[in-house]
Amino acid sequence: MIIVMKPGTTPEEVNRLKDEVELLGCKGSITQGENYAIIGLVGDTRNINVGQLEARANVAKIMHVAEPYKKANRLFHPKDSVYKIGESSIGGKELAIIAGPCAVESEEQLLSIAKDVKRMGATFLRGGAFKPRTSPYSFQGLGQEGIEILKEARRITGLPIVTEMMSPAQVGAFGEEVDVIQIGARNMQNFDLLKAVGQLRVPVLLKRGMAATLTEFLMAAEYIMAGGNEQVILCERGIRTFETYTRNTLDISAVPVLKKKSHLPVIVDPSHAAGIRWLVEPLAMAAVAAGADGLSIEVHNNPEKALSDGQQSLLPEDFKKLVDRIRPIRKVIQGE
Amino acid sequence: MIIVMKPGTTPEEVNRLKDEVELLGCKGSITQGENYAIIGLVGDTRNINVGQLEARANVAKIMHVAEPYKKANRLFHPKDSVYKIGESSIGGKELAIIAGPCAVESEEQLLSIAKDVKRMGATFLRGGAFKPRTSPYSFQGLGQEGIEILKEARRITGLPIVTEMMSPAQVGAFGEEVDVIQIGARNMQNFDLLKAVGQLRVPVLLKRGMAATLTEFLMAAEYIMAGGNEQVILCERGIRTFETYTRNTLDISAVPVLKKKSHLPVIVDPSHAAGIRWLVEPLAMAAVAAGADGLSIEVHNNPEKALSDGQQSLLPEDFKKLVDRIRPIRKVIQGE
Amino acid sequence: MIIVMKPGTTPEEVNRLKDEVELLGCKGSITQGENYAIIGLVGDTRNINVGQLEARANVAKIMHVAEPYKKANRLFHPKDSVYKIGESSIGGKELAIIAGPCAVESEEQLLSIAKDVKRMGATFLRGGAFKPRTSPYSFQGLGQEGIEILKEARRITGLPIVTEMMSPAQVGAFGEEVDVIQIGARNMQNFDLLKAVGQLRVPVLLKRGMAATLTEFLMAAEYIMAGGNEQVILCERGIRTFETYTRNTLDISAVPVLKKKSHLPVIVDPSHAAGIRWLVEPLAMAAVAAGADGLSIEVHNNPEKALSDGQQSLLPEDFKKLVDRIRPIRKVIQGE
Amino acid sequence: MIIVMKPGTTPEEVNRLKDEVELLGCKGSITQGENYAIIGLVGDTRNINVGQLEARANVAKIMHVAEPYKKANRLFHPKDSVYKIGESSIGGKELAIIAGPCAVESEEQLLSIAKDVKRMGATFLRGGAFKPRTSPYSFQGLGQEGIEILKEARRITGLPIVTEMMSPAQVGAFGEEVDVIQIGARNMQNFDLLKAVGQLRVPVLLKRGMAATLTEFLMAAEYIMAGGNEQVILCERGIRTFETYTRNTLDISAVPVLKKKSHLPVIVDPSHAAGIRWLVEPLAMAAVAAGADGLSIEVHNNPEKALSDGQQSLLPEDFKKLVDRIRPIRKVIQGE
Repeated sequence: MIIVMKPGTTPEEVNRLKDEVELLGCKGSITQGENYAIIGLVGDTRNINVGQLEARANVAKIMHVAEPYKKANRLFHPKDSVYKIGESSIGGKELAIIAGPCAVESEEQLLSIAKDVKRMGATFLRGGAFKPRTSPYSFQGLGQEGIEILKEARRITGLPIVTEMMSPAQVGAFGEEVDVIQIGARNMQNFDLLKAVGQLRVPVLLKRGMAATLTEFLMAAEYIMAGGNEQVILCERGIRTFETYTRNTLDISAVPVLKKKSHLPVIVDPSHAAGIRWLVEPLAMAAVAAGADGLSIEVHNNPEKALSDGQQSLLPEDFKKLVDRIRPIRKVIQGE
Repeated sequence: MIIVMKPGTTPEEVNRLKDEVELLGCKGSITQGENYAIIGLVGDTRNINVGQLEARANVAKIMHVAEPYKKANRLFHPKDSVYKIGESSIGGKELAIIAGPCAVESEEQLLSIAKDVKRMGATFLRGGAFKPRTSPYSFQGLGQEGIEILKEARRITGLPIVTEMMSPAQVGAFGEEVDVIQIGARNMQNFDLLKAVGQLRVPVLLKRGMAATLTEFLMAAEYIMAGGNEQVILCERGIRTFETYTRNTLDISAVPVLKKKSHLPVIVDPSHAAGIRWLVEPLAMAAVAAGADGLSIEVHNNPEKALSDGQQSLLPEDFKKLVDRIRPIRKVIQGE
Repeated sequence: MIIVMKPGTTPEEVNRLKDEVELLGCKGSITQGENYAIIGLVGDTRNINVGQLEARANVAKIMHVAEPYKKANRLFHPKDSVYKIGESSIGGKELAIIAGPCAVESEEQLLSIAKDVKRMGATFLRGGAFKPRTSPYSFQGLGQEGIEILKEARRITGLPIVTEMMSPAQVGAFGEEVDVIQIGARNMQNFDLLKAVGQLRVPVLLKRGMAATLTEFLMAAEYIMAGGNEQVILCERGIRTFETYTRNTLDISAVPVLKKKSHLPVIVDPSHAAGIRWLVEPLAMAAVAAGADGLSIEVHNNPEKALSDGQQSLLPEDFKKLVDRIRPIRKVIQGE
Repeated sequence: MIIVMKPGTTPEEVNRLKDEVELLGCKGSITQGENYAIIGLVGDTRNINVGQLEARANVAKIMHVAEPYKKANRLFHPKDSVYKIGESSIGGKELAIIAGPCAVESEEQLLSIAKDVKRMGATFLRGGAFKPRTSPYSFQGLGQEGIEILKEARRITGLPIVTEMMSPAQVGAFGEEVDVIQIGARNMQNFDLLKAVGQLRVPVLLKRGMAATLTEFLMAAEYIMAGGNEQVILCERGIRTFETYTRNTLDISAVPVLKKKSHLPVIVDPSHAAGIRWLVEPLAMAAVAAGADGLSIEVHNNPEKALSDGQQSLLPEDFKKLVDRIRPIRKVIQGE
């Protein structure tokens, strides 16, 4: 951590501040320039409250050298995290392919899609039972019934299931029965929810908030991990920018950057980034080429009747084409 | 609603789609251009699922004419909403001045600040008992104890209290005892929380999400109102942009735009927008000049020891100067 | 300047780098932490090429303490810059009010508007002769003829004239005859143009680029000042964000921040920020309340026939109302 | 084009406006809703001035159905544009690989790099002679001398040369002698420069402005094409967002979207998007996987001594590795 003093601060004041912060357990060294003095702090800076320092009349600003996340930080955990979930895995050599409808609409719909995507190469089944919708007047999901349908689809296909939790109150409904709990982009900083899933021992697929920096994203993962649940999967799904042609702007750089900064697996959701069906495939190709550990793809057997996200859902046959095209890309990436 | 067909769609297909959507209860009329045909829809379009339409192979895009929010829409409620809360009010002639520390830290701290701000012109007392913090390792608030301290401060000063709810599980703790429930920016689209406060009959101060469009902001208000709780207060607190000098970019235009589109009161939080103490006053002045119905200001009697947001908290004496400067601006705005 | 070394760099390597950069004329001091070492540099760092340092295998990143601009920096020029231009002035006590049409369309149009705004309190006349238009198929301005019409309007009203220069090739046409040369937002980093006006001795109204940080904005001013032309006026006109309701997002914080960082006068263009007529007045009020030194307002006597920006131009009578409302706000700000 | 009338407009007013715009050469049809009336316009809407319409008291907003660009529009030119330049080409089957230093620094430097990249698979040589730099105090390029060195390198290697033009005044220096003229991101809306290169018959590599929408980007291409120079190459190089870890955010979706909307070739500059050396390769891989027609890569034989962009330049041997990895990706994309 670096403290930059305001121009005009006396050397005595700089010294006094250095002595004071050293009482909190770190070590400081002063560099005195013509206009600015800086105090470089090393060691244990956890007891320092940055806002309090910035509140001082003679402090210009605080700059951070180290990352604020620990458990998610590759610096302290150099090896890639890999999770074995049922017969599938996320992280490591296998490319995780999560596919399924945006929302679970009925048993018939889900089973049909589940069987299709299983046959075509999916390794996980996704589907929303509790749906976060922008409008209170839109379909809000089947709730508990949707969870039961997902479990039935797992029984039949063997695919582990991924579904979104929206509130700590749903912990009971999800229990140990869902294979991967998804936290949606809008809830990335719903800290009570992060704490709740931090208490579970179920892998969590955490989606990046639409205006979250990569550091904030990793801090949200840290919340879950700090609770003891270290099986977090990071999911880039597009960020909000000035560009309006696409629903969101897929931040493809996030893939290599997150993998450098953290040991957690990183997957990409091209469906939500694109918001339009024909864009899903090129974005999926790019994601795999950039080194993603997996994809989450919306697939629907009848998009024109889908209760949500029909415009960005692939038909099963298009999903098959996509899988067939990404496989050779993945091979190139893995140097095979 | 307007449906734009893809180039090359035949007139028969356009007609067929028009007939089909009319079955859902609205009325369409076709404009056939050289490259594009459009279908203009009027009447009741609530039964139309936009994603389903966009999922069709011959639909290029859907454009919206009407706003998706009803209860928050000034078109259907031309008169300004005004809420009387204790001896104070929000909306209408009186400028609401909400002041207090970021977090309730102790009874002594809160009572001291509460008495100060009351004497200096505040009309509401704010203070966080449950605190959303970016890091799991930061102070998370006093919780229920904080609520009790707020109630004690209200008893002594008479100021109605404003405090943040982070989870539906806290509804019991807040009950009917908090005068205004705040929903933080990070929870603006925590739909389960919005539904929970929608069931209460306590005014809700809803902060704009840091990347929420004004339409999404009003849709979040609509969520609360759809539950039956129509006393929503909108709070602009800065949005996230590429500019990093300020913590957030105060979107000053949001004030007149929200007041034109909606009948709900609009207040501004210059403390979070600025993120730096000396910027709070000019932003507060601008907010009142732009027509805001109130301000929410962080005040601390010892910012260098504040457990959060010390760098942007005003000292009581600076808060007094700010109040003294905004009063004449407000008079100009009200044409007095 | 602070050099942060990568984890794992040996103390010898850190020392070697310190010795090396000290040869360039500055002084370094090392703070050695557990994971990161940092080198704080003071003194003359102008000879350091940041990209070269960052290119080194053992350097993690460079952090800047001092601002990169000198001539525009208030640290070195504490007193406000004030320019006397004809009978008017910008900076200091007088509020500069620049008004006129987006484009000069004809002598009749400009003279009519010029007389109106003069009578209503404008202190400068604006009007575009060379027009930057998004489409090559739109009206591109009257060119040299427009300059002549502006000069005629100045002769009649006495108002100094402000008009945009788009290319170094226009220096001849503008010569010493235009009172204030405007550089548009799209040309804020057209460095050849900045160098060209840096050679003149005519005040330059520099508009902020729509995605320019405040530091980049001040560096663009520095370009002009480095050429010897120190009479630069900064103009905030809205930045590009995700919000699409307004044409741009007026960054109201830019006003107090620029005035703190720089001694140059700061004005606001609410017309371009708003993009809609009814929003111009509240934004102008906010700008003056935030401490702006002036306003630039588009006024047209027949917006429905304006060749550009009709939708955001005020009618003369609305401009009069605006001026009448901002005067008392300005008085409050100046403590009168 | 669609005109949305304000609530409360009478049917007579709507009819009157329809009649009026039809006089300008298009055909309108009215859809009358409960709150809003809309007028759909088809046919030739070029004579309509949108700002004038929006300036009317009873018009709520204008919505666009058709794209504003014609010559760049794939709708009117379904076939991909391919340019043969020397022995190389851009567009079509061959992947264009543009490589070289950020700036031409000396004959020795450029010739060494040119020979290296030629041997390693580059098909074009890049290098800046005129350099746009954020600071007036940074190296500004060798100017005309740099052009001569580039020509010498072409003579020796046979690689066509790509270099940036910053001002219409440089047209003479570039003449017919540069194979591809680059327009930098900061000059994407320097309309006088676009018009100047529109008069030439040399291919133009147009970089996307850092806050330009895809429509604005294509309109900038249209400016050049409207002048008669139809050989435009579009280059995505990252946009500005809130994320600060990368220098810019590579908008990977821009590749498939631009290729769908336009017939022009689309290349990607991963070096400027990344701003850090190790990120260049994964972004280049993603770009090719998303369907880009080429890449522009900064390569330097001594990045630690580079006069600009050293931190993001690849060493020749790293460039070779990158080329070797993208070739098989390209084969997958082309279905070979």
